[in-house]
Amino acid sequence: MSQVSLSDLNAADKADFVAALANVVEYSPWIAEGIAGQRPFAGINQLLDAIKAAIQSAAPDVQLALIRAHPDLANKTQRAAGLTAESNAEQNSAGLDRLSEAEYAAFERANDAYRAKFSFPYIVCARRHTKDSILRDFETRLQNIAKTETRRAIEEICRIAALRLDQLVAADDKLNVHGRLSTHVLDNHNGRPAPGIAVELVELAALGESRVIARAVTNHDGRTDAPLIGGRPLPIGRYELRFSVGKYFAARGVQMSDPPFLDEIPLRFAISEPEGHYHVPLLVTPWSYSTYRGS
Amino acid sequence: MSQVSLSDLNAADKADFVAALANVVEYSPWIAEGIAGQRPFAGINQLLDAIKAAIQSAAPDVQLALIRAHPDLANKTQRAAGLTAESNAEQNSAGLDRLSEAEYAAFERANDAYRAKFSFPYIVCARRHTKDSILRDFETRLQNIAKTETRRAIEEICRIAALRLDQLVAADDKLNVHGRLSTHVLDNHNGRPAPGIAVELVELAALGESRVIARAVTNHDGRTDAPLIGGRPLPIGRYELRFSVGKYFAARGVQMSDPPFLDEIPLRFAISEPEGHYHVPLLVTPWSYSTYRGS
Amino acid sequence: MSQVSLSDLNAADKADFVAALANVVEYSPWIAEGIAGQRPFAGINQLLDAIKAAIQSAAPDVQLALIRAHPDLANKTQRAAGLTAESNAEQNSAGLDRLSEAEYAAFERANDAYRAKFSFPYIVCARRHTKDSILRDFETRLQNIAKTETRRAIEEICRIAALRLDQLVAADDKLNVHGRLSTHVLDNHNGRPAPGIAVELVELAALGESRVIARAVTNHDGRTDAPLIGGRPLPIGRYELRFSVGKYFAARGVQMSDPPFLDEIPLRFAISEPEGHYHVPLLVTPWSYSTYRGS
Amino acid sequence: MSQVSLSDLNAADKADFVAALANVVEYSPWIAEGIAGQRPFAGINQLLDAIKAAIQSAAPDVQLALIRAHPDLANKTQRAAGLTAESNAEQNSAGLDRLSEAEYAAFERANDAYRAKFSFPYIVCARRHTKDSILRDFETRLQNIAKTETRRAIEEICRIAALRLDQLVAADDKLNVHGRLSTHVLDNHNGRPAPGIAVELVELAALGESRVIARAVTNHDGRTDAPLIGGRPLPIGRYELRFSVGKYFAARGVQMSDPPFLDEIPLRFAISEPEGHYHVPLLVTPWSYSTYRGS
Repeated sequence: MSQVSLSDLNAADKADFVAALANVVEYSPWIAEGIAGQRPFAGINQLLDAIKAAIQSAAPDVQLALIRAHPDLANKTQRAAGLTAESNAEQNSAGLDRLSEAEYAAFERANDAYRAKFSFPYIVCARRHTKDSILRDFETRLQNIAKTETRRAIEEICRIAALRLDQLVAADDKLNVHGRLSTHVLDNHNGRPAPGIAVELVELAALGESRVIARAVTNHDGRTDAPLIGGRPLPIGRYELRFSVGKYFAARGVQMSDPPFLDEIPLRFAISEPEGHYHVPLLVTPWSYSTYRGS
Repeated sequence: MSQVSLSDLNAADKADFVAALANVVEYSPWIAEGIAGQRPFAGINQLLDAIKAAIQSAAPDVQLALIRAHPDLANKTQRAAGLTAESNAEQNSAGLDRLSEAEYAAFERANDAYRAKFSFPYIVCARRHTKDSILRDFETRLQNIAKTETRRAIEEICRIAALRLDQLVAADDKLNVHGRLSTHVLDNHNGRPAPGIAVELVELAALGESRVIARAVTNHDGRTDAPLIGGRPLPIGRYELRFSVGKYFAARGVQMSDPPFLDEIPLRFAISEPEGHYHVPLLVTPWSYSTYRGS
Repeated sequence: MSQVSLSDLNAADKADFVAALANVVEYSPWIAEGIAGQRPFAGINQLLDAIKAAIQSAAPDVQLALIRAHPDLANKTQRAAGLTAESNAEQNSAGLDRLSEAEYAAFERANDAYRAKFSFPYIVCARRHTKDSILRDFETRLQNIAKTETRRAIEEICRIAALRLDQLVAADDKLNVHGRLSTHVLDNHNGRPAPGIAVELVELAALGESRVIARAVTNHDGRTDAPLIGGRPLPIGRYELRFSVGKYFAARGVQMSDPPFLDEIPLRFAISEPEGHYHVPLLVTPWSYSTYRGS
Repeated sequence: MSQVSLSDLNAADKADFVAALANVVEYSPWIAEGIAGQRPFAGINQLLDAIKAAIQSAAPDVQLALIRAHPDLANKTQRAAGLTAESNAEQNSAGLDRLSEAEYAAFERANDAYRAKFSFPYIVCARRHTKDSILRDFETRLQNIAKTETRRAIEEICRIAALRLDQLVAADDKLNVHGRLSTHVLDNHNGRPAPGIAVELVELAALGESRVIARAVTNHDGRTDAPLIGGRPLPIGRYELRFSVGKYFAARGVQMSDPPFLDEIPLRFAISEPEGHYHVPLLVTPWSYSTYRGS
């Protein structure tokens, strides 16, 4: 997606400014209209704060209309009829376009129960989630009272806006909306980083199929050249990192049993902080390994 | 199965001695007949040595007949027609009665190729193997020349005899035919053994379904009351131990993320020494863990 | 020291019973006299309970006299004049016969301050302590009020009595007065226990000299044949275990740097539970190691 | 020390060039004179190569004179009479100005034996060593034949020249003459880096006193702001890192025993590659820790 610079936004006439930010919040140009007069913004964080203030200070009926402007999650009919490009990409990022039948059914039940209780759609910032964590979030939020849930919906709308803004606007400062998942393989048998180890990152699913979401090979420093997940929020969920250590040691002529005691090593862990840094290293010999949340 | 004591075997008349040991080697009473005169045996190890010597010193055509007296592995027709009770139990112990279609096909191909090359059935001590390790063994042994493979078949017959003898005869000494798989969970967060942790042992399968072969809960010392596998050889193969540590720490009120960084921890390893001791402990905190081959 | 059996004590006439237990509590035959009529005792635990009950239920002035019957700790004049054999051995066990000048001075200051405040000698079960932990205990207990400190002195007298009884009386049951310190060296480079490693246990001292209190070599299972400390309480204090791993790996032809990255490995830890089991293992490769409080 | 830029050296007249490099090799202006005509040098590595080539291609008697121009190490008389500023600083960097009597005696014996055998002084690049590693190097090199030892002396002179050049000349490229020692403390109890931990680096000495050579406190990422040793070669030798973890956990209200099982943790290791990167992290809970050579 092509970006627009903050300085251009600051200098644009009002109509262009509103058009540029039209999709930052779903079907709600009134927000950009309301803050156009506050320009120039010193940075993208200040711009986001203005958007959030506009949303949070809107009258209750305006907030409710804003919430109702959002589509259901994983709703086949609505998806067929067409979502905004932004909503579509966001739902896809959480895998909502690839649901198993069991998952579709679970989402349908959850949406129905939510709408029945609150009379507005469940809203969540999908880029911060996996399918599983959304279904868990549904359950938790269904316990809330309406007032709490209105506040939660507004919060999620602000998170969605922040991520859309992050993608849309180029500025000198950065929004704190990205997380990072990295790894590092140390060969404690030889006292050095382990290069050339194939690594897979699997997103685990409770109802549907688990799937490989990243593949990499460790470099000379035992790390991957790029983060396993980076430049975006880390989706809340359960993961497994898989390391092909048997081949690594075999290639170095290390004496091993047959089959080798350790071959493919799985590290299973959960991510709960989408904006956090998760460093999940592997310290390994042919007969031992350890891992920990590092930094 | 009821056991007979070594002293009774030593005191029995020859016919009873031969009858008692009839099934220690498949369809081959001549072996017991040949060693009856060497009684009394000082121990079960001495008795086994006598059996092995009788087999190994037999004439080549006798050895070949002995090999041919054995059934194919995982052969549906032969299994339907009836195996000896011993063969049946042994094949079942390696899961050969629960093969997937893909596995049956693989065994059929392997048996056919083996018979075509050597003109005698492939023999393996099934209690020392999993389905996967038998298929790997097939591949390896198909590369052998006939002379080597005759020797290997005799070796396996001796191993089968040792295990049958171990089950049949009660003596003061023990045959070294058992292995042991144990675990131990240390809670490094609190500096003490971790009791009450549910542990599953899964046998991993390349072609068919992996299956849980043992379940236990750690006791006050963080160990299981009985070995996860014991009193028998450890089947060569790949395994996964799974520990429910999330529930353990949650029950102790330890502050954790939601979902917890570590919940179910899998330790994946292979066993290559059926008569060995594999100690596979877990040292764990809510944020780290390690394992190693211990003792 | 020769032991007397509980059954003999139960059967003895009263004078012999009192004589046998004369030194279980310093200069206080009235205790044994008071409980002689409760015989027979079902076990040594029951006998100890009777002694403790006699002490704890004595009139305040009797308790005070009992406390005052005890010598000062590490008092040169009293030691020259002669202590009971039991007191002497107990004080020596904590190294009070080998104090540096700085330590003597510290003990003298502490004894004087304690007597000045409470008008009775400081009593501690020396076998459960090192010099350092006694000096720390002095500081803590000097903060107490007299009533608390009387109770603490009686507690320590009961602990001393328990250990003297444990040494004196042979019975079927055991008093829970012993701790155990053990270690285990696992060679994670080769996946097996590490035999032949020289291990030293050093008691660390804040003011005087640290000293080696045990030496051992690991056996085929990577353990020491006997506990590093066993058959007695573990003295509260700070310790260092030292393992000669450089020689071990060099003897096995493992390729290492020169000098080796790891050679003598110190593990420094404290003991706070004299009756506990401290298992302090070492998991080691030429390039890594770890330890933990095990079981 | 003020630096001179490579471009200035390239542009200087010959006399100034020779004067600037006069002390790069002890008392040997002929080297700079010999290479002045090769200017301009494209970088400091090319300049160093020219110096090394001049030394290595010199006639045997010139090389011998060069070797003999060097002072003895740790020679009181020579030090009193005055060394070049460079030699003095180099010898001090290895602690040769702070020798115990036993160390002086050892150096004197070694120097005498070396001179007696080779008729020239022992030369070593002192900045790459500790006192202990120099004494070990003496022993090793005393076994050499004269031809080998002449070559070794020339090698060390080139290493000394490289380090002097590195300090003297500012250029765009860098000589690969620096190593780095770093650490990192991970709190596995809480799953995050451990800030505020006091760290001491001690150089261990076989004959004299061990001494603290660096002190630091871990920052918010559990690292020290600067390497523990950096911007210079790592002296070959034995070291101990000491971490005050007891205070760290106590300050966070973590429940611990009294005294704490772990308080000051020593990690003892050796450095053998002066130009290497040694990363020696500590993974720690109140009840466990581990370390390894990392990257």
